[in-house]
Amino acid sequence: MANAITVDDVYGALEALRAKRPLVQNITNYVAMAVSANVLLAIGASPAMVHAVEEVEDFVAISDALAVNIGTLSPPWVDAMRIAVKRANALGKPWVLDPVGCGATAYRTRVAAELAGMKPTIIRGNASEIMSLAGQVGAGGKGVDSTAPAEYATSAAAALAERTGGIVAITGETDYVSDGTALVTVHAGHALMPLSTALGCSLSAVTAAFAAVRPPREAAVAALAVFGAAGSVAAAHCGGPGHLPAEICDALHRMDRATLGAQARFVGVS
Amino acid sequence: MANAITVDDVYGALEALRAKRPLVQNITNYVAMAVSANVLLAIGASPAMVHAVEEVEDFVAISDALAVNIGTLSPPWVDAMRIAVKRANALGKPWVLDPVGCGATAYRTRVAAELAGMKPTIIRGNASEIMSLAGQVGAGGKGVDSTAPAEYATSAAAALAERTGGIVAITGETDYVSDGTALVTVHAGHALMPLSTALGCSLSAVTAAFAAVRPPREAAVAALAVFGAAGSVAAAHCGGPGHLPAEICDALHRMDRATLGAQARFVGVS
Amino acid sequence: MANAITVDDVYGALEALRAKRPLVQNITNYVAMAVSANVLLAIGASPAMVHAVEEVEDFVAISDALAVNIGTLSPPWVDAMRIAVKRANALGKPWVLDPVGCGATAYRTRVAAELAGMKPTIIRGNASEIMSLAGQVGAGGKGVDSTAPAEYATSAAAALAERTGGIVAITGETDYVSDGTALVTVHAGHALMPLSTALGCSLSAVTAAFAAVRPPREAAVAALAVFGAAGSVAAAHCGGPGHLPAEICDALHRMDRATLGAQARFVGVS
Repeated sequence: MANAITVDDVYGALEALRAKRPLVQNITNYVAMAVSANVLLAIGASPAMVHAVEEVEDFVAISDALAVNIGTLSPPWVDAMRIAVKRANALGKPWVLDPVGCGATAYRTRVAAELAGMKPTIIRGNASEIMSLAGQVGAGGKGVDSTAPAEYATSAAAALAERTGGIVAITGETDYVSDGTALVTVHAGHALMPLSTALGCSLSAVTAAFAAVRPPREAAVAALAVFGAAGSVAAAHCGGPGHLPAEICDALHRMDRATLGAQARFVGVS
Repeated sequence: MANAITVDDVYGALEALRAKRPLVQNITNYVAMAVSANVLLAIGASPAMVHAVEEVEDFVAISDALAVNIGTLSPPWVDAMRIAVKRANALGKPWVLDPVGCGATAYRTRVAAELAGMKPTIIRGNASEIMSLAGQVGAGGKGVDSTAPAEYATSAAAALAERTGGIVAITGETDYVSDGTALVTVHAGHALMPLSTALGCSLSAVTAAFAAVRPPREAAVAALAVFGAAGSVAAAHCGGPGHLPAEICDALHRMDRATLGAQARFVGVS
Repeated sequence: MANAITVDDVYGALEALRAKRPLVQNITNYVAMAVSANVLLAIGASPAMVHAVEEVEDFVAISDALAVNIGTLSPPWVDAMRIAVKRANALGKPWVLDPVGCGATAYRTRVAAELAGMKPTIIRGNASEIMSLAGQVGAGGKGVDSTAPAEYATSAAAALAERTGGIVAITGETDYVSDGTALVTVHAGHALMPLSTALGCSLSAVTAAFAAVRPPREAAVAALAVFGAAGSVAAAHCGGPGHLPAEICDALHRMDRATLGAQARFVGVS
């Protein structure tokens, strides 16, 4: 059984992130770029969006972690992802894969599978994406929205974690983190969050930031807990989804031990 | 004369949209992507931004409607638009053309004309764009801003509707919807709206969402009325244009029959 | 010694900008597009984002100023920058270079140097970027964040201004404007601003808008003063960085002579 993770562990990870201010390189989609950058800045990381094949390798060399997101993929961007991932692996730098919309089209599924085969440190997706990526056909991806509850994908996550040798996080009403054998359940977040675009993508970026300061499983749990707690705090100030990204940034910027403890709950299950 | 459209018709369309949660594929500009996605989520649709030629056809097949916007066009994106539009037409799926900046450069005008020739279900633009697209030279497009009041473009809209066989919506202080013969006038919106970027583009995306649940003319009127009503509600909470997109999302999320009736007014003119 | 610039000069420049409503063409990065467009609209300019080689030259011909920003550069975009800049120079239109992340990778540094060699009217960057662009090696760019205080770059700015024949603005806690000999110091802004993405990029776009109505040095100072003052006003309404871009737009929209005078201070130093 994996060791339990406590609120103090998570808050310690957040303090370590703020102290290090990791440079997180993002090869991400057009929709999520600004929100992801703002979320990374708010939590205390230093974001960069760099995708040209002419410079991705050089940039990986100065970065602390890499987030790869296929939301608005096209061949030149996929080339950059491949090159950046190879370099990250060669240098031992952690990288996170967000297989946005995996299962929706053959091209997207193929690219996601190829990247998942390149040993991502952590994969973060919704249930449909994780099931599709694990090869469970008929996952029924509806664009980038998940059409299945996260619970349905826990065995797919375990299989995927075992096959890739990494950690797999599934987000939904409840979130799960699998290392192939043990499963950690994270309760945090708010029902308004799926109504604001790019929050899942931003969470993947935050996961990369935590992976720069903590081992993969702890990084994934910390990202889910801190981001979810910020989402809960943020939603309490909102009368709809419109101001959610801005409020999440404010909540991340001000996140303290007490708020984290009140808003996020996680249990390890062997 | 076309049948009159009532507030109940429009609210019924909104309820149908929320019940169906249509998947709206967008091939749109970089500036408008995040706002369009958030507006679609807030109104109750499911947005996707997909533009690679490798997957646009597959994605059209699972979508309920398509929005094509040439705001930041370049040849690879135009290729994707052509392929997606052909597929949408072949499958009988509605699609909306937003000819951003038509008239500003020869390239932009040529691409807009080509797409307008591919039988869009609905075209949505400002007066300059519609006049330019209808071939009324000297329309004086100033970038993406309209330099002419919407009234000036009603005959151009009628000509364009007749030529394309679709519906043409002109937005401005007052909005108009033409089917080539009848004209519907929509009074809604707020003077702050042109000071916030991508709201017109987002309206085009919303128009596509309504076209997934209603016939073209009714869809265009519903989109103008609901979006305009949300804009009025939103602007009442704003001391400038900064928070307008977020407030519009909140207003769309909470839009009810009474608010719609109080904020939007439309009359059919034969 | 250069002539002193007063608050009345700056406010007069803002009034001239609002009266002219200059069309500002942006070839900028994906992250900054929406914020830059909103900031330009809020201050009273008319923004356009146009980058296809097929139309950039035509668009420069109808624009009043051009902003070139290499934040998410790639070869097709750099081609568009070259063509647009040549056309702007041929037509005598002002253009601003924002060398985002110069020094972080060899490709980025090479492109920035090439563009800096094409006689930009104004260059706007942080200390790391300006020092790297001036050829002061070991500037230590950490992605797009500056790792050096603006003070360190004043001699680099002077050298760069002299070499390019243009004006160089360095932003940081204190801002500086150099014409190669005289230095103007601008005190404005707020410590929250670096925690919100794309504000520096938006400032470069605003600088281009001012360059459409004032000579380069005065335009650069006016942009720093007005944008910084808006940042101070905005931050006073914020409990974190989340709402800063929206609040800056509102503050720009409402900026008056008294607020400007209270929030911005600048002194010329020979």
